[in-house]
Amino acid sequence: MRICILGGDGYLGWPTAMYFSARGHEVFTLDNMSKRLWEAEVDAAPLFSVPYLSDRVRYWQRRGNSPVHTIICDIATDYDLLKEILGDFRPDAIIHYAEQPSAPYSMMSRVAAVRTQQNNVIGTLNVMFAMRESIPDSHLIKLGTMGEYGTPNIDIEEGWLDVEHNGRRDRMLYPKKAHSLYHLSKVHDSHNLEFACRVWGLRVTDLNQGVVYGIDTPEMDGMAELMTSFHYDDIFGTVINRFVVQAVAEMPLTVYGNGGQTRGYLNIRDTLRCVELAALNPPETGEFRVFNQFTEQFSIIDIAATVQRAASSIGLHTEIQHVPNPRTEQEQHYYHAINSGLVSLGLKPHRFTEDVVIDIIRKVQTAKGSIRETGMLPRVTWHGGRAGKYGGI
Amino acid sequence: MRICILGGDGYLGWPTAMYFSARGHEVFTLDNMSKRLWEAEVDAAPLFSVPYLSDRVRYWQRRGNSPVHTIICDIATDYDLLKEILGDFRPDAIIHYAEQPSAPYSMMSRVAAVRTQQNNVIGTLNVMFAMRESIPDSHLIKLGTMGEYGTPNIDIEEGWLDVEHNGRRDRMLYPKKAHSLYHLSKVHDSHNLEFACRVWGLRVTDLNQGVVYGIDTPEMDGMAELMTSFHYDDIFGTVINRFVVQAVAEMPLTVYGNGGQTRGYLNIRDTLRCVELAALNPPETGEFRVFNQFTEQFSIIDIAATVQRAASSIGLHTEIQHVPNPRTEQEQHYYHAINSGLVSLGLKPHRFTEDVVIDIIRKVQTAKGSIRETGMLPRVTWHGGRAGKYGGI
Repeated sequence: MRICILGGDGYLGWPTAMYFSARGHEVFTLDNMSKRLWEAEVDAAPLFSVPYLSDRVRYWQRRGNSPVHTIICDIATDYDLLKEILGDFRPDAIIHYAEQPSAPYSMMSRVAAVRTQQNNVIGTLNVMFAMRESIPDSHLIKLGTMGEYGTPNIDIEEGWLDVEHNGRRDRMLYPKKAHSLYHLSKVHDSHNLEFACRVWGLRVTDLNQGVVYGIDTPEMDGMAELMTSFHYDDIFGTVINRFVVQAVAEMPLTVYGNGGQTRGYLNIRDTLRCVELAALNPPETGEFRVFNQFTEQFSIIDIAATVQRAASSIGLHTEIQHVPNPRTEQEQHYYHAINSGLVSLGLKPHRFTEDVVIDIIRKVQTAKGSIRETGMLPRVTWHGGRAGKYGGI
Repeated sequence: MRICILGGDGYLGWPTAMYFSARGHEVFTLDNMSKRLWEAEVDAAPLFSVPYLSDRVRYWQRRGNSPVHTIICDIATDYDLLKEILGDFRPDAIIHYAEQPSAPYSMMSRVAAVRTQQNNVIGTLNVMFAMRESIPDSHLIKLGTMGEYGTPNIDIEEGWLDVEHNGRRDRMLYPKKAHSLYHLSKVHDSHNLEFACRVWGLRVTDLNQGVVYGIDTPEMDGMAELMTSFHYDDIFGTVINRFVVQAVAEMPLTVYGNGGQTRGYLNIRDTLRCVELAALNPPETGEFRVFNQFTEQFSIIDIAATVQRAASSIGLHTEIQHVPNPRTEQEQHYYHAINSGLVSLGLKPHRFTEDVVIDIIRKVQTAKGSIRETGMLPRVTWHGGRAGKYGGI
């Protein structure tokens, strides 16, 4: 297949590029490098230094792999280039990660909120139009988030809900109540994309992804030259990755509030397999298909306990520390989300076990000297944005 | 009360300004004049020439009314000015009309779609942030649209839906399936605003308005100097206004498709009363309150028949002509929307009668010589955007 990856420089984009390339697909990556700007803006360096995408692509090819085409393109502002690339390359599937991916980033200031929604919503609108103009039969695989749903008091279905009301029925988009202005940008994308399927006949898979954890994939083969961007800070770090780094540094695992917040999670290796399964099994023309892309549900406090046990078993002693919750969210709530779609396509989940945690710990330990202790405590609150004068950073 | 009107130059904004001013409220209007640009862009002049907002404001005051403050401000790009005005004026209510209001406009090109969502979504985000920063206790009255809901096969409730699923219950945002990229911009606004209420404690009334018709309000008192922008073209004209102008010109009333499309409608005078009722009865702190703001439901073919009968009764003979539907929409569907919220606050609807139609016809006849016959047939399709080379305009 021909696979186009939007956001190829990111935590998931680059591993996805290698994954498809290693399996004989032709891969074209686009990125505008803004994630590197946003990281610098909030003083959030990744744990391992991440080579330029162009350097990783060259190294990948030098190791005997197929070339991965790479172009710098801002899909939200350079529509002409986006359309030209899609029209020339004619991908069978477009995997769209090219969005500002952080909830705290979106909540830190008005400027950051506007930037997030503008980048994400307009970028996706441009992809829709470029597909309609040039490649209407292609398949868009769009990364959404489980955070679009919030924490409803009913089961979370996969994107659609059969509603009965006053004796009549309809199949409707599942109602969304998102956790942040970032999550809302994905809600907006989902609505725009459902429209593009319904009215223009595009085919779209919207992957409502859980929280991803993990540091490497087999394609990296332990090579620093092929590393992806691994964050453990309060802005771009996801919670399991942050806890592991805190454990390696023997700092307290900082749980927001009482830790009863429950979400779906998945290993980065499962992300790649899910995206592959979506690509290999495209939806019908005009179908807006939604999968909930996670493998297990945990509360924050459960995760902290698992990381603590795993760390302890190899001699690392950490405390669990509750800190005031910077987010506005329920800390005790019902949570039961369906995730059978990808499993029915063949997903065999990697489970979140102590062994898996130990494996991530071991890799983080190789960079222990690089761990920056600043930025692990929350610097952004949902009520007040960035703390302190000039944003406290 | 102190009332701030965003979009004070528009079809509804200016009548709203006079309405509140005439009732002793202090009124501050903002507009960036972009509607005048968009009109020119699509060759859609209003029927009566519309004096500058500044001239209308001066004339209004010369007639012995209180001054209406007016400032040119683009709320989507000039946040500093928006925040300064809101912080200085400290409105009790902000009435927000400052959005690109046309579905066909949003569907005519990628550029127009992006402009619509960017202007509307970012403008509303800026209002949210300015309120949070400066006037968190103020009340935002936001004009949404019934088109956010689409045409579901169940009753349309007012913004929220009590859902029972697998034996559990929740009150959820009513699922949206909008009719165009313009309507989607309002869906996005609604989601962002619900978040602002839930997380920041703002108070918002989202008015999901039906299709407005009518040409004047008592405050205009028949004066050309106080006229509002009345459109009858395919881009900015609403259907009843277009049919009336077609009847005056003794042109066919052009029904899209079979005309079974059913929507909610209201008289422009009821719009003003609805907004007043919302302002006089603010929601609680943190409440995202939604009203469906329409008074009657009709199919397009019903409306055409009413206009035809009214015209005929005063000697104007028109045919009803079915033209291919430029929109992608259901032409036969269930439609039953609840609108009891505003009625319970005291709304006494003006009904859509033949006499009302005749009254509008009489006013349009005074400008019969200005009717432009171009632009009454649809120039934008939902599938292909603007027709012809360079958009066919």
